[in-house]
Amino acid sequence: MMMSVDDLTAFLAKEYPQLAESGDFVVDEVAPMSAKLRMRYDRRHLRPGGTISGPSMFTLADVGLYCAILGELGPVAMAVTTNLNINFLRMPGQRDLVAVCRLHKLGKRLAVGEASLVQAGPDGRETLVAHATATYSIPPRSSSGGAVI
Amino acid sequence: MMMSVDDLTAFLAKEYPQLAESGDFVVDEVAPMSAKLRMRYDRRHLRPGGTISGPSMFTLADVGLYCAILGELGPVAMAVTTNLNINFLRMPGQRDLVAVCRLHKLGKRLAVGEASLVQAGPDGRETLVAHATATYSIPPRSSSGGAVI
Amino acid sequence: MMMSVDDLTAFLAKEYPQLAESGDFVVDEVAPMSAKLRMRYDRRHLRPGGTISGPSMFTLADVGLYCAILGELGPVAMAVTTNLNINFLRMPGQRDLVAVCRLHKLGKRLAVGEASLVQAGPDGRETLVAHATATYSIPPRSSSGGAVI
Amino acid sequence: MMMSVDDLTAFLAKEYPQLAESGDFVVDEVAPMSAKLRMRYDRRHLRPGGTISGPSMFTLADVGLYCAILGELGPVAMAVTTNLNINFLRMPGQRDLVAVCRLHKLGKRLAVGEASLVQAGPDGRETLVAHATATYSIPPRSSSGGAVI
Repeated sequence: MMMSVDDLTAFLAKEYPQLAESGDFVVDEVAPMSAKLRMRYDRRHLRPGGTISGPSMFTLADVGLYCAILGELGPVAMAVTTNLNINFLRMPGQRDLVAVCRLHKLGKRLAVGEASLVQAGPDGRETLVAHATATYSIPPRSSSGGAVI
Repeated sequence: MMMSVDDLTAFLAKEYPQLAESGDFVVDEVAPMSAKLRMRYDRRHLRPGGTISGPSMFTLADVGLYCAILGELGPVAMAVTTNLNINFLRMPGQRDLVAVCRLHKLGKRLAVGEASLVQAGPDGRETLVAHATATYSIPPRSSSGGAVI
Repeated sequence: MMMSVDDLTAFLAKEYPQLAESGDFVVDEVAPMSAKLRMRYDRRHLRPGGTISGPSMFTLADVGLYCAILGELGPVAMAVTTNLNINFLRMPGQRDLVAVCRLHKLGKRLAVGEASLVQAGPDGRETLVAHATATYSIPPRSSSGGAVI
Repeated sequence: MMMSVDDLTAFLAKEYPQLAESGDFVVDEVAPMSAKLRMRYDRRHLRPGGTISGPSMFTLADVGLYCAILGELGPVAMAVTTNLNINFLRMPGQRDLVAVCRLHKLGKRLAVGEASLVQAGPDGRETLVAHATATYSIPPRSSSGGAVI
């Protein structure tokens, strides 16, 4: 991998200080074409009815997929989200929520992936709470692998 | 309309205290099958590069469409977002961003609409920054128009 | 399962005579919350450049997910597609294309699922050619399991 | 415009012979960042229940938006659909269906647009039957405007 869990954690802390300050977003794993990002349960993410808010879930899916791209391309890449489609399937419980992210394609210009937002229940079984697919525009890179600026 | 701009403002203040406290989200207009929601420019919504964050734009589109539904159905309806698809088209500037929302369909079970996120430039011309379509599940209502609980 | 591969094949032949007459669409598998539908390679599905057309891929994903729903609910259900989002990832080759379909949710009113459109290469390795997620509206059913008409 | 209605009609006849042979798809209009494509009512597009099939509507939206792009860029551009999201809103009647297409963005690498699929009723009023948004990848062009091959 171009970036480890520690590299990604440090990168997010610098690039997304608001996420990092909250301490709620934790990089659990990075692997070829994939990543896992955890959102620790906190009252801030709640919306009426005691459920986790849509924007918090959007953020988790989007940043999780961004981590999967960074793991492949390294920190120079400033990928930009161009499309995100999210289906909200079940009311999440008041527990940690994990984005299991997998890239379908990492092309020269576009990356496409899916994020399954899952929660572990009291019995340890995982429930799919929401599912997103997203497309990212990859900036042109020089032949040495660095971003062209 | 079942709810006026003032009704919607009071409703959001009660139901979404975090949005309301910020003072950033302002209901500009509600009309048949449509609504306009404004996000006042504030440093909080920024992400690296000085642009407005994706989650803030998601929230603006989602809450704006929710206002259009509430305007038609009244405050009893607890519509739930089931799908939201958003295209990010241009980097927004550091200015107010307005969601111009229009319902395509308001059925018994599903509502579908689109939100155009626009900014007025220094010359007054509007630029389309992002565009979302979303589906909401409408809870069953009694024949008298009230929600069945 | 409420319907077997043979049941589904007979159902599609009756309900979608155009698909069935072509002989191109074959139900490979039905299992809990899932199904596999194969589109045999045929010149008719080509578009300029020798690739399989977008509408053919749309049909494969849509009918494949419909089979997964029918397998769970039985032939009385007239589920209707309300939303379909498809990402085209790679040019398909001139070979069979299989929709591997999985339901994320089968609720009382909505079903949501994903279809991975894959091709086996000459070396047997599978390539993901396109990926779709879709939502279906489920008609009200009587308590005995039959559709309410 | 780089291409007129007649240019587009001739282009589609050559590039999409199957569409053209049917005689069902008619370019009604091309204008800056927009186009209208009509699908003449024909029994072939029907699905069970006497309604127009989803794949036919997919095709109408996709080809209509492609026409809007061709009108701007000319026939050299081989734009490729990368994402299409479609909401089916109402059962279409057994009448012509028109895709009113508008580009939201025509960038160097990506084009994004929306297609409203409408039908004129017996009273002349238009009904929105389906709504799609789609993204196209634009191939690199030489500085003289021609496609780089």
